[in-house]
Amino acid sequence: MSVHDWDRLIDALREHRSATDAAPYIEEALQALESPARPGSAGPAEVPTPAPEELAAYIDHTQLRPTATDAQIDRLCEEARTYGFSAACVSPPHVSRTARSLEGTDVTPCTVVGFPHGANQPAIKAQEAERAVMAGARELDMVLALGALASGRYSDAEADVRAVVTAARETGEAVGTHVLVKVILETALLDLPQTAIACVIAKRAGADFVKTSTGFASTGARAEDVALMRQIVGPEFGVKASGGVGSAADATRMLAHGAIRIGASGSVAIIEEARAGR
Amino acid sequence: MSVHDWDRLIDALREHRSATDAAPYIEEALQALESPARPGSAGPAEVPTPAPEELAAYIDHTQLRPTATDAQIDRLCEEARTYGFSAACVSPPHVSRTARSLEGTDVTPCTVVGFPHGANQPAIKAQEAERAVMAGARELDMVLALGALASGRYSDAEADVRAVVTAARETGEAVGTHVLVKVILETALLDLPQTAIACVIAKRAGADFVKTSTGFASTGARAEDVALMRQIVGPEFGVKASGGVGSAADATRMLAHGAIRIGASGSVAIIEEARAGR
Repeated sequence: MSVHDWDRLIDALREHRSATDAAPYIEEALQALESPARPGSAGPAEVPTPAPEELAAYIDHTQLRPTATDAQIDRLCEEARTYGFSAACVSPPHVSRTARSLEGTDVTPCTVVGFPHGANQPAIKAQEAERAVMAGARELDMVLALGALASGRYSDAEADVRAVVTAARETGEAVGTHVLVKVILETALLDLPQTAIACVIAKRAGADFVKTSTGFASTGARAEDVALMRQIVGPEFGVKASGGVGSAADATRMLAHGAIRIGASGSVAIIEEARAGR
Repeated sequence: MSVHDWDRLIDALREHRSATDAAPYIEEALQALESPARPGSAGPAEVPTPAPEELAAYIDHTQLRPTATDAQIDRLCEEARTYGFSAACVSPPHVSRTARSLEGTDVTPCTVVGFPHGANQPAIKAQEAERAVMAGARELDMVLALGALASGRYSDAEADVRAVVTAARETGEAVGTHVLVKVILETALLDLPQTAIACVIAKRAGADFVKTSTGFASTGARAEDVALMRQIVGPEFGVKASGGVGSAADATRMLAHGAIRIGASGSVAIIEEARAGR
């Protein structure tokens, strides 16, 4: 069994419907839950394991340890180029170096905003997003305002995401590109109604993706959370599974449950394992 | 034994002296290590356990969980007022609420900058500091640029601290107060030479305190790190022990090793224990 019990979730959401500020978010989550199941959301779809070279194109190769050195970032970029990963994801101070290293390749420079707690003022997150794009980032993985979510201030959490999305869109336009915004929910810290509502918040705020985890909480991506997220956001929105995805089997399971992107630090091992296994 | 082996540390520092950019930092650390031991730095001093009401005045009462709710922040402030803690330390989005709640009391509103990874561009940290002071914060606990430190770019790490110190000083002046800046080293992620060098960096950059930990790494304050930090920064500089300080005995041990401030989330239990114990 790798999906949550949605009937219980629907009941829990209905109980919260009367709370201030919450109604429109909960209505939207309920509608999504009561609509026909999306591919992957009700359980593993019958998707074949991608070939190793295809699998790499789903993976954001990631190095976000606070003590990451310049040499480790250089190695990350080299691996990303060699294996053809989708993106190389680094902390904001490493963006310029990463963007230079990836110039002329198909690997996208990705960074994080308000990472890993999401507990920054929205204007600061927006400025961090703007500077990251100016420094060369083309994808931004921001952390949701988890305190606003936990306090039931959903419109504040939405405004926080929108501040980053607006900065990303405007700065992206200024440099002539579309900058992708992924919203990290940190599912380890949320209950199921909060996970569902967080997906609605990300979608209403105009982001491009929801993402499970920072990789720094007690747990990372769980297939059942990915399935729930896919069901709530629908087929036209991105879902990224990250945190603890350490094997080709893990990655394939996340894709089968509705993810279209994987975040991993052990990406090279994943691909080598996929190559050895076929 | 609760102090490190300083002779080995001195040897390790000497070996690094020739590295680019490192020499002035290492010289300063060596000078401090070879000077007479400061109170607390060579081991526990013969300091009496403070009376419970005195102990509270050493403690920054802290709630930095990413999912902290408005109600939890209100409780933190109420406890800080009731017990007379030195400060109430919260995440940036909670600063306005905290400052309002503490108005007219002796409890100082404290927040964090670049928390908890320190992996933000210096200009963003400076802007976060400025906004925090404008919102009412009077103490700022910033995280060192750990990636720059680990990469041996000590002058970059110093510039990062200085950017925050400058913002704190200038914004503080604009609102008519001195804003204290504490530099979190996250000792769990550093080796001893790095801890010593980080203290030199914080001091050169004009900060007011060094602080051991964010509370979100694998370990928190260790008495031997506090002793080392006290020895390096000298008697006129602040040392804050934080992370895992959960009992009156822990707090007293940190003070005996040279700390003059304690960060704790279980501060009420610490004081109640101290009261019960006398």
